[in-house]
Parts: sequence; C-alpha cells; structure tokens
Amino acid sequence: MEFTVKQIAALLGGTVDGNESLKISQLSKIEEGKEGSISFLANLKYEPFLYSTASSAVIVNKDFQPRQPVQATLIFVDNSYSAFTILLEHVNRLKQAEKVGVEQPSFIADSARAGDRIYRGAFSYIGENCVIGENVKIYPQAYIGNNVTIGNNTIIHPGVRIIDNTVIGSNCVVKANAVIGSEGFGFAPEADGTFRAIPQMGIVIIEDNVSIGANTTIDCATVGSTIIRKGVKLDNLIQVAHNVEIGKNTVIAAQTGIAGSTKIGENCIIGGQTGITGHISISNRTKIGGRTGVMNSVKTEGQSLSGMPAFDVKSSLRSSVVFQRLPTLEKRIDQLEKKLNNQ
Amino acid sequence: MEFTVKQIAALLGGTVDGNESLKISQLSKIEEGKEGSISFLANLKYEPFLYSTASSAVIVNKDFQPRQPVQATLIFVDNSYSAFTILLEHVNRLKQAEKVGVEQPSFIADSARAGDRIYRGAFSYIGENCVIGENVKIYPQAYIGNNVTIGNNTIIHPGVRIIDNTVIGSNCVVKANAVIGSEGFGFAPEADGTFRAIPQMGIVIIEDNVSIGANTTIDCATVGSTIIRKGVKLDNLIQVAHNVEIGKNTVIAAQTGIAGSTKIGENCIIGGQTGITGHISISNRTKIGGRTGVMNSVKTEGQSLSGMPAFDVKSSLRSSVVFQRLPTLEKRIDQLEKKLNNQ
Amino acid sequence: MEFTVKQIAALLGGTVDGNESLKISQLSKIEEGKEGSISFLANLKYEPFLYSTASSAVIVNKDFQPRQPVQATLIFVDNSYSAFTILLEHVNRLKQAEKVGVEQPSFIADSARAGDRIYRGAFSYIGENCVIGENVKIYPQAYIGNNVTIGNNTIIHPGVRIIDNTVIGSNCVVKANAVIGSEGFGFAPEADGTFRAIPQMGIVIIEDNVSIGANTTIDCATVGSTIIRKGVKLDNLIQVAHNVEIGKNTVIAAQTGIAGSTKIGENCIIGGQTGITGHISISNRTKIGGRTGVMNSVKTEGQSLSGMPAFDVKSSLRSSVVFQRLPTLEKRIDQLEKKLNNQ
Repeated sequence: MEFTVKQIAALLGGTVDGNESLKISQLSKIEEGKEGSISFLANLKYEPFLYSTASSAVIVNKDFQPRQPVQATLIFVDNSYSAFTILLEHVNRLKQAEKVGVEQPSFIADSARAGDRIYRGAFSYIGENCVIGENVKIYPQAYIGNNVTIGNNTIIHPGVRIIDNTVIGSNCVVKANAVIGSEGFGFAPEADGTFRAIPQMGIVIIEDNVSIGANTTIDCATVGSTIIRKGVKLDNLIQVAHNVEIGKNTVIAAQTGIAGSTKIGENCIIGGQTGITGHISISNRTKIGGRTGVMNSVKTEGQSLSGMPAFDVKSSLRSSVVFQRLPTLEKRIDQLEKKLNNQ
Repeated sequence: MEFTVKQIAALLGGTVDGNESLKISQLSKIEEGKEGSISFLANLKYEPFLYSTASSAVIVNKDFQPRQPVQATLIFVDNSYSAFTILLEHVNRLKQAEKVGVEQPSFIADSARAGDRIYRGAFSYIGENCVIGENVKIYPQAYIGNNVTIGNNTIIHPGVRIIDNTVIGSNCVVKANAVIGSEGFGFAPEADGTFRAIPQMGIVIIEDNVSIGANTTIDCATVGSTIIRKGVKLDNLIQVAHNVEIGKNTVIAAQTGIAGSTKIGENCIIGGQTGITGHISISNRTKIGGRTGVMNSVKTEGQSLSGMPAFDVKSSLRSSVVFQRLPTLEKRIDQLEKKLNNQ
Repeated sequence: MEFTVKQIAALLGGTVDGNESLKISQLSKIEEGKEGSISFLANLKYEPFLYSTASSAVIVNKDFQPRQPVQATLIFVDNSYSAFTILLEHVNRLKQAEKVGVEQPSFIADSARAGDRIYRGAFSYIGENCVIGENVKIYPQAYIGNNVTIGNNTIIHPGVRIIDNTVIGSNCVVKANAVIGSEGFGFAPEADGTFRAIPQMGIVIIEDNVSIGANTTIDCATVGSTIIRKGVKLDNLIQVAHNVEIGKNTVIAAQTGIAGSTKIGENCIIGGQTGITGHISISNRTKIGGRTGVMNSVKTEGQSLSGMPAFDVKSSLRSSVVFQRLPTLEKRIDQLEKKLNNQ
C-alpha cells in the first residue's frame, strides 16, 4: 500500500507544509522514522526527534510551531494522536480487505456452505455441514471441523483449530494456533486407580465481536455449552475449561486459566497469569490484578482484587510490603518475649 | 446421529411413558432442552425444569412420580444419572468410530507403515519409517515426523506435532496443537556470554491410555527418554521439560510446568498453574493444589501440599489467612514495643 | 544414521579396546543401553552400570581401569563427557543437514524468493514478497505470511506461524507451533462499555542465533517493533507482548509472560512461570527465580530476585520460611498482649 501525503492530508482533514506528492508506505514512531514513513508528534517530550527524524512526513497539532528547521513534510490537524489512530485504522481496514478468494489445495466438504467474498487459504480445512458467513477469512492451515457455524466478517488466523459443533459469531478474530472446542478435561476415577474419560458432548458458543489470542484453548462443555459472550477479549495462551461462561465485554490478559464451570461476569478486567478455580462466580466489573489466585466466588460487584488467595487489592499490597519484613518481625517478637520473661 | 426414544430405552433397559417414535439428535441439560434433545433428572432441585423443558425426552428414576403434567416423553430407569452417562459414552463411541479412510491431499513417506481402519485427514504428514497401529485417527494438518511409533486406537487431533523418534502407546488421545518431542531447552554458556545449544538426542515415550491436552508441550530428553507412564492425563497448555518422568495414572491440570529431569510418582493429582522445579522427585499419591511452587523433593507418599514454596496444605491455608492480617500484626508488635519501653 | 566404532573413535581421537567394526545407530545413557547404542562413563557413581550395560560401546576416560570384565567395546578418550558431547553435536549436525528439497504439495507465492539448499516441507506456505535465505528449513505445515524475511540456516519447525512483515535473522530455531508477529493485545474502551481494537501495525524483529520454544507467542508492536536481540533463548509457552524488547543473550524459561512495552536487558536469566508487568525496564545480568512477579523496574545490574512482588532472592527465601510460621507468630503476639495486659 502506498499513499501520497496529499491523500493522507485529505483523509485526516489536515493542511500540508512541504511536499504534497511524497509517497508514504509505512507508519513509524518519530524516533524510528525512515524515508517513506509517516509519524506523529503529540507529546512534546518527543519534539527533539522532529528535528532529526528521517520520516518523510509528520502529523502535528495545528497550533504547533517548530522552533528549529524541519526536514520532514508536516501535516497539521486538530489532534495529531487521534489523526494517527484514524490513519492506522484506515490502513488496517485496507489490509484486511485484501484477502479474498480460494487458494489451492484447500479442503471443503460438499455439505459445507460458505458466503460471498470469503478467503480460504491453502491447506485450510472445512468439514461437513459447516455454515460460514459472508466476508469470512480462513487463513492457511486453519481447521474447521464438522457442523461449525461462523458469522459474517470473522477472521480465522493460520493454524486455528475449531472442533466440531462450535458456534462463532460475527466480527470475531481468532488468532493463530488457538484451539476452540477441544474435549474438556473430565475423568472419573476407577477402583483400580486408573481414570476413565467422561465423554464431552457439549459445545463452545462464541458470540459477536470476540477476540481470542494466539495459542489460547477453550474447551467444549461436558453437556451444554462453554460460552464466551459478546465483546469479550482474550489474550494469548489462556485456558478456558469446560462449561465456563465469560460475560460480555470482559477483558482477560495472557496466560490466565479458568477452571471448569466457573462463571465470570460482564465488564471484568483480569490481569495476566491469574488462576480462577472451578465452580465459582465472579461478579460484574470485578478487577483482578496479574498473578492473582481466585479461590472463592466474588459476590459484590466492582471490587478490585489481588494476591493468593485473592483479597482486596490495597490490603493485598500492604500485606506484601510487610511480607518482605517478616524475618525482622519474628526477631522483634523474640526480643519482646525475652524482655517480658526477664521482668 | 439420530435415535428414536425406543432405541434409547432399549439401550438403557428403561420403560417409556409417552411417544416412543420421537427422534432424538442431541443431549442437553434439562434447563437448556430443545425439540429433538434428551435430558435427565437426577437431583430433585432441578424438578421444576421438568415441567417447562422443551426437551423431547427426559430420563428419570423409576420411582419418580411427577407432581404436574409433563410435556416430554419420560424414560424410567434404575439410576437416571448413570443411564445418562451410558448414553453419553455410547454416542461418543459412535462419533469416534465415524472417521475412517484417507482424505487428499495428505502425505505419507513410502517407508511408513499404517494399520487397518486408519483415518488420515487432509494435509496430515507422516514421515519416514513410521509405524502406525490399527484404527488410529490422524486428523487434518497433524504432523508425524520420522521413525515415530503409534499404537492401536490412538487419536491424533488436528495440528498436533509429533517430532522424530517419539513412541506413543495404544488408546492415547493427543489434543489439537500439542507438541511432543520438540528439542529440550538445554544451553551451555560460552566465555563470551553467548549460549551454545546442547544437542537433544533423546526421545519421548508415551505409554498406553494417556491423554494429552491442547497446546501442551513435551520436550524430548537430552539423552535417554522423557517418559509419560500408562494412564497419565495431562490437561491443556502444560510444559513437560526434557528427561521428566511422570508415573502412571497421575493427573495434571492446565498450565502446570515441570522442569527438566524431575520425576513425578504414580497416582498424583496436581492442580493447575503449578510449577515444579528441575531434578527433584515427587512421591506417589502426592496431591498438589493449584498455583503451588514445588521447590524440593517430596519424600513421603500421600501428602497434600500447596503454597509457594509448597508445604502442607492445611498449614499453608492457615498461613495465607494470617498473611491477610500482616499489617495489623505489625502494628500490634509496634504497640507491644511501645508499651514495654514505657514501663 | 549408522557409524562403526572405528569411525567414532577416529572422530573423537580415541583408542578402542574391543570390536572396532560394531555398528552404532543410537546414543543412550549407560543404564538404558541397548545393542547398537553407545554410552559414556564420566561420573564413577555410574561405574556399576558399565559391567551390566547392553550398550555395544562405552566411551571412558583414558586413565579408567575396569575392575570387572566388560562386555561392551570401550573407547578411551581424554575426557569422556566432552567426547560424548562432541559426538552428540556431530550426529545432530548430520541430522539437521539431511533435509533439503521441496515436498509437494507446498505453497510459495510467485513474488517470494528463496535461497539455495532450502527445505520446504509438504503443506508449508510462503506468502508474497518473502525473502528466505540459504539453507533454511521450513518444515511441513509451517506458515510464513507476506513480506517476511528469514536469514540463512534458520530452522522453522512444523506448524510455526510467522505473520506478515516479521524479520528473522540467521541461525535461528523456531520450534513447533510457535506464533510470531500476531496482533498485540490492544483495546480502547468505548463509552458503552465495549472495547475497540487498536490496529497493530508494527512488526517483530528477531536477530541472529535466537531460539524460540514450542507454542511460544511473540506479538507484533502497535507501532514500531517488538525486538528479540542476538542470542536470546526462549523456552516453550512463553508470552512476549507487543513492543517488548529482550536484550542479547538473555535466557527465559517456560511459561514466563512479559507484558507490553517492557524492556529486558542483556544476559539476564529468567526462571519459568515468571510474570513481568508492562512498561518497565530490567537491567542487564538480572537473575530472576521461577514463579517471580516483577512489578517494578530493576535499575541496578546483576541483582538476583524472587517472590511476588519480586525482591532480593535471599531475603525473599527468608520471608518464605517465616511465612510458614505465621499462625505461630500470631499466637505469640496474642500471648504477649495477654501477659502485658495482666501486668
């Protein structure tokens, strides 16, 4: 993709000081600029880079006045940061729209149906009775099992595995090598010390506007459904066990694990590497710090928690500070006892 | 798959009250029933759902007497819960048995041998000198390197990577995107601060009846074997480092990591997100809570541990409770000192 | 691969006592030897195994004198341990050199260029405008997106996903199912409680001699680059978020997570399951124990840290010991208060 400075200025409603016909093919930070790249200056802490940047063009606020000569062409806009974001989104949309059509070899069962403007990459697999919406992108080497439904505009990245009977909504993104609908981890102990697998006959339902990270795993329910509600955002390497439900707009950072049958509320924010035990409920708008261990239901909405086991974040931090003084505390107790015994 | 109520009643040794010719194509919870689904009622807490369920049929205990009119057809059996489990297993067996044959394109080296009734999915790869047993299912896009042995009835899910020389037993399940036999993490420091890779020439041996979770990684040994004994069940996203040995029937929950050369006993139960350091031994029947950090060998059998570092689970929980009061404890010590100094 | 004892002795500069024409096809521990395998004896603790091993040959120190009859052929060398390591590396080099050529079907865009002596496995995918160096191995089912650069001698294992615009140096190893360059986890909250994805337009740069573990994920930068410097070694199942930079020769064990925009110094050693928060800096030569939670920048070089939150490793261990006595400590405070109040 390549734009002229003039085209970008028109997109952003800005005015140009410099060469309007320069060609821009990349976005970069102002301190890492190259010929052909465009940057922005919002925080004046970065102003010195403006005078040395190799970027061809820089987006600045319309009231900004350079204090030294500037090599780069400037685009003046109302708000340089949000203008840059608009540019990012514009480029991103163009990039996403590029892929259409079918690469060969790829596999699709005769009984599967796919909507218009689909991309099916080489070595992708679509099983029996699947229903794939319009404008869906299925990247190379992705696997869609039997009876899977995928809504419009959803993007399935390379190497994703979507196991039989999964339902995925519209406008979702599933990142590379994520596994959705794999059998839950359920085993019944036998008298001889071995374990017998409990058949996992349920499914996974993922509603609209959900994002699922790379190498994340979401297991199917034993019976019924594991449910990821509208607008949930899951980072990489997360484990979601069988029969979990995650409420809408909840955001969970990388490497967190949620054990079986737990229900997480709406609009929660959960830090990375957190562990949440099975068969509990977390209320709406709960904030959980990174590396927290949640072992009990959270019944009041809007709490902030951290620690292992989890409790109020402020108290938890205070206890952590005292923890570092524990050897001293013990010595002080020793001395108190000595003194008191010597009285 | 579709059954009549009559067929299901025959399978379960039950009697029918209602329409025997209804068609059943799905199993569901009684509170989530739909037309065409069958549910069960065991815990009478759920009895109210019986009178409103949309399930076509419900399995109930033979001594159960409805207190209101029931729309659904009822199947009376000795024990409704275990009957439902039998039905689950029956459906599961039928489901697993479906896949046989070879989809194209798929890759198998001339020197590889595969038993009868194998399923090889599209884009699967089988390297030189592999020996694959009977009734093995290798799903699409799975990779089997050179000199790999796989026993009868084992299921290799989509995107699994089994690296050269791995030995896998019979009746195993390896879930999607698991990696078995990748090079161990071994590096020798050089004088200039760089690290040189130590060649990892060993293998992974997985015995019979083992289950391995999605995106789990099991590294090959440096020399010798990383060994997963009979009946071990590993959940998703687990890391098993080089030269580890896991004893038979041990069950390990998601996101746990085991460092190099550690030996875990038989019939252990290990909670999720646990970390076990390298070069230690864990005795048989050890129970380890979730998020535990095990830093030393566990020499006595049958202990229950938790905490970081791990110690007796009850003491650990007691310490955790006092941890939450640490700031108060410190204040009490302050006051004791003041009092004593003022005497 | 098969060697005679004579060939191996020549490679190692050793002398043979026994049958020089024996054929060796495997390396094994002395206690796990089989016909056709070669072992070594360095630590005399293992001497008893020498007299019972089934290995065809054993490498021993030149001053070693057996005290009982030995079945195996012996190879005498200056240092048996380092001789065995040389043998390991020799075999490994031969093994790595085996794979050359293109298996079909595989996919390469017309605009992509690949150097000499490349291996491209079946079902591998190489997108538009890629530049792949000489002697690169791209294993089956690996995915290389558009505009990716890969240096000479780099090995891309099966199922690796390298997303668009990633730059990978020479002599790197990327293990199975790792994901490099996936979109970073960046979302902006909207007024209605939903989150909007912030376009992730940056890239990942991986310098020379880097090793990346199985199922590890490295996200691309929002703008600019996520950078993994020369000689870094990453284990399995690690999360590296957007805009992170890892300094040269740093080694990180499995399941560690590094949040966005954090900068890690050179020659650091970081234990497994560690979590490092976003937007901080870790100085060179920092050592971080397993399961540590790093919540603040580490400004002094060469420190050793552990705990949650991280502090000096020795103090942290001392606090952990006192933690186990917390209930007793509380009781002692109770008693002190009683005594003092009764005075």
